[in-house]
Amino acid sequence: MPAGANPASPTALPRVAMVQFNSTVGAIDENCRRILDAVAAAGSDAELIVFPEMAVTGYPLEDLALRPALQAASVTAVDTLARDLQARGHGHQTVVVGHVGTAASTVGGRPAPTNCASVLRNGDVIATYAKRHLPNYGVFDEYRIFTPGTGITVIDVGAARVGIAVCEDLWQGAALMAEYRAAGIHLLVVPNASPFERDKDDARAALLAERAQEVGCPVVYVNSVGGQDELIFDGGSFAVDAAGSVTARMKQFTEASLLLDERCRGSVAPAADDLEQVWQAITLGVRDYVHKNGARSVLIGVSGGIDSAVVAAVACDAVGAGNVHGVSMPSRYSSQHSRDDAADLAARTGLHLRTVDVEPMIAEFSTRLQLTGLAAENVQARVRGTTLMAISNSEGHLVLAPGNKSELACGYSTVYGDTVGAYAPIKDVFKVDVWALARWRNDAAARRGETAPIPPASITKEPSAELRPDQLDSDSLPPYELLDAVLESYIERDHDPESLIAAGIDAELVQRVVRMVDAAEWKRRQYPPGPKVSRLAFGRDRRLPISARPPHWSSGG
Amino acid sequence: MPAGANPASPTALPRVAMVQFNSTVGAIDENCRRILDAVAAAGSDAELIVFPEMAVTGYPLEDLALRPALQAASVTAVDTLARDLQARGHGHQTVVVGHVGTAASTVGGRPAPTNCASVLRNGDVIATYAKRHLPNYGVFDEYRIFTPGTGITVIDVGAARVGIAVCEDLWQGAALMAEYRAAGIHLLVVPNASPFERDKDDARAALLAERAQEVGCPVVYVNSVGGQDELIFDGGSFAVDAAGSVTARMKQFTEASLLLDERCRGSVAPAADDLEQVWQAITLGVRDYVHKNGARSVLIGVSGGIDSAVVAAVACDAVGAGNVHGVSMPSRYSSQHSRDDAADLAARTGLHLRTVDVEPMIAEFSTRLQLTGLAAENVQARVRGTTLMAISNSEGHLVLAPGNKSELACGYSTVYGDTVGAYAPIKDVFKVDVWALARWRNDAAARRGETAPIPPASITKEPSAELRPDQLDSDSLPPYELLDAVLESYIERDHDPESLIAAGIDAELVQRVVRMVDAAEWKRRQYPPGPKVSRLAFGRDRRLPISARPPHWSSGG
Repeated sequence: MPAGANPASPTALPRVAMVQFNSTVGAIDENCRRILDAVAAAGSDAELIVFPEMAVTGYPLEDLALRPALQAASVTAVDTLARDLQARGHGHQTVVVGHVGTAASTVGGRPAPTNCASVLRNGDVIATYAKRHLPNYGVFDEYRIFTPGTGITVIDVGAARVGIAVCEDLWQGAALMAEYRAAGIHLLVVPNASPFERDKDDARAALLAERAQEVGCPVVYVNSVGGQDELIFDGGSFAVDAAGSVTARMKQFTEASLLLDERCRGSVAPAADDLEQVWQAITLGVRDYVHKNGARSVLIGVSGGIDSAVVAAVACDAVGAGNVHGVSMPSRYSSQHSRDDAADLAARTGLHLRTVDVEPMIAEFSTRLQLTGLAAENVQARVRGTTLMAISNSEGHLVLAPGNKSELACGYSTVYGDTVGAYAPIKDVFKVDVWALARWRNDAAARRGETAPIPPASITKEPSAELRPDQLDSDSLPPYELLDAVLESYIERDHDPESLIAAGIDAELVQRVVRMVDAAEWKRRQYPPGPKVSRLAFGRDRRLPISARPPHWSSGG
Repeated sequence: MPAGANPASPTALPRVAMVQFNSTVGAIDENCRRILDAVAAAGSDAELIVFPEMAVTGYPLEDLALRPALQAASVTAVDTLARDLQARGHGHQTVVVGHVGTAASTVGGRPAPTNCASVLRNGDVIATYAKRHLPNYGVFDEYRIFTPGTGITVIDVGAARVGIAVCEDLWQGAALMAEYRAAGIHLLVVPNASPFERDKDDARAALLAERAQEVGCPVVYVNSVGGQDELIFDGGSFAVDAAGSVTARMKQFTEASLLLDERCRGSVAPAADDLEQVWQAITLGVRDYVHKNGARSVLIGVSGGIDSAVVAAVACDAVGAGNVHGVSMPSRYSSQHSRDDAADLAARTGLHLRTVDVEPMIAEFSTRLQLTGLAAENVQARVRGTTLMAISNSEGHLVLAPGNKSELACGYSTVYGDTVGAYAPIKDVFKVDVWALARWRNDAAARRGETAPIPPASITKEPSAELRPDQLDSDSLPPYELLDAVLESYIERDHDPESLIAAGIDAELVQRVVRMVDAAEWKRRQYPPGPKVSRLAFGRDRRLPISARPPHWSSGG
């Protein structure tokens, strides 16, 4: 053990309250009011109360963080928060909050602030730690915004020496752990704003176990919760002991606080299974998008198909069926079972359903413009999109788009038609997983003795856009099991087409799928945002040019 | 003068050919074929032939550059290019080309390549310089993609020692200049992919003058030309002597090469004035977006108003009037002068004009959905959008959206209505500048003895969306002169509302405009891409959350 390192004896640690907190980006005053309330709710037994990364300001602020007025407001708010905590009798408690720190330098000619966590006690800001490792990949752009910190921050809470790190510091911070170990800390607390993706909870647990062993003391990991445009912060805050074993874990996808004992132990919530996590992530995404943008109700075109049924069921879970409005818009190509399935969805969930006859509008366009083929198909979708937007304008509902990731990938959608909406709940879910989610949700209802929300017929029937007689998705696309496997490999794993072919997938199929994906980039740019749930989502996670001819286009034919 | 520094005597420099080159992103084989042709066209007198940054691969590649297959293809292509140059008798000439280099490390778990410039001679790659300063602000994301280089690269060309830097190296590279000066170079060549913005040519000239004095020798600045989604590379390649005086300058916005003499002198093209530059940038943006995406013709809804008239005139300049299709879609609220002005536009430019009566479709929607107010206004725009897309689907034209920056800023548009399109030529031009561009273009025509393309009545009449009787833009928006001044300050200068008010602008007006801008973020996300011409464009240049309540919302009322 190096000189000055953590003594092996189990020092009595402060009782930590982990506050899994849902901030609104930019709403500094409101966030601070809610932080005060959360400290009060944590109770007087809590000696060290830890909030997530950027709890004061929300995250990610993107270029808002570059505004000097926001930086000033953030720093002032933290000072005020310290005084307000003192005034409300919480001065003796130690509170750690994440926020935007003062600009330390410039990036691209603009002031570059820090991503920091301040320690508040006795009415003062007694210490501030600035995040040292800035993520700048995937959905993250922190080099664009922040200056990295230097050094470590150790505070005394009672008899314990407590260190602070922020989020990415854990992922890249083996050397930082050694510094903290050398400083002899007894506890490391880590505010995070770590967005959800499937299987990430396992990755976090493995990481924290490793870091705890490196730093040689318990680690408390407090994560944000809430939806912010494309990102869903899932919470799932947890603690590990010095050996890396989980000693406390909070439920994901909900605001809450958890008080740990003097050895960083608390209740350990069971981990939800994969499909449940995805459902809850999407549901939270819809709820927060709607509410944080000042809306209350949503509008969905319900076709009777599986995509709109799942989106509607998610919406009912998110904002309540009383705030969910469905519109059935059958055309001459809509089957009777589609109409029946839409009605069944409404009966099962309790959403408001109306039917609009779109045939007359379609007929006007088709006749006057003499539309045939693709143009005649697409105009049906666009008349439906225009109908939804007209109702939205009249009644104030926010429109949800039903597209799934397989569709988005292949461009199997009508831009300004079925793509209209403010938010697209399942845009990061492949078709095979849309079915799986539907089954999971219906099973969950059955287990609770509730009515399954999704019509079984919507799950089992052959998918069709119903834009021409007897149309099936399989006329235009490979079978979804195969398609989704290729898409997952090409998009989420970034495998190049040659390696897919080398792995035994039919070369013609691979080339066909890859061409569809590449050619649909322009459509995806105009698609509404929706929650990232996969390792690589369309949107800020995957940035590609529209005007491009990647090499495989020429090499592959 | 430090030891080893550049001797003051004017060493005979190699004759440099600057090749202002238009690459297509990802089309490595095609780019290399065209590089070979450009070397041949430069002539045998050219001893050192300099291409722009990333000439082999196109720029910006965005996440395509992270693909190992692309990295491998790029490196292989440069080797092949060296051999092909030799085979065609150019082995004795020294050729500098920019390209993606081999991954030197990983970023976010993915291989991080270099942004480099290789020197080809006698069939070999004789040297490779990797860009040391990576821009990661504004429209740039190079930290996401590239590993910075280390060290300098000096090659001998005849008796001269020649150094290489790449683009951002100039902007941040005072220390690099000192290294090159110490190395005693006689000439610095700099491949660039520097996107156009207004007044940037002046900034580049001032910068190069400074750097030339620092490095103590002539500098040759070779810039890309061409449109790439949001970015327009304007060329404008130039050279300065050791004192920083311009000794050669190429015309902007066109592919060309220029052969310099032994003292880096060549013809000096006059700088175009500001409005001419903007017009040419937008025109090049449209032409390259259309052609690089495999289209030939465009479709525009022409209302008789100034925005669609300017977009149509740009399109005629970009792809030829024979490839421009206009659709007049008058409704009951369209004035006779609007119909006349649309017809006049067609007569002046020669674009194909047709008229579609959209009243019956509007009436079907309005009656069946009982639309009033905003919903009744918006449905007119959406019927027009659907009409344009139907014609696009039938005939294969690419739709251009007519929105200007003032509209986009304030959300004064109907999403899925007048916003439909693949490309939006004037989205980065404020309304006052749309008028100025129209006047400039008509004046330019008059100077050449040609018909002015834009109907004078479209320029002089009061702007109106004509979605209800006697509607004027001024019913909903402040006067454009005032509005655009506030928008320019808030958006392009990033001034906070308080500072605008402090500068004497009416507080209520500022708050109103800022709220409109912030609330329209979701609409802008779904808007088509268009060329950046200002210092700060909507799009990748300005990244803001949708779900947000910036502090000024609460503090300002």
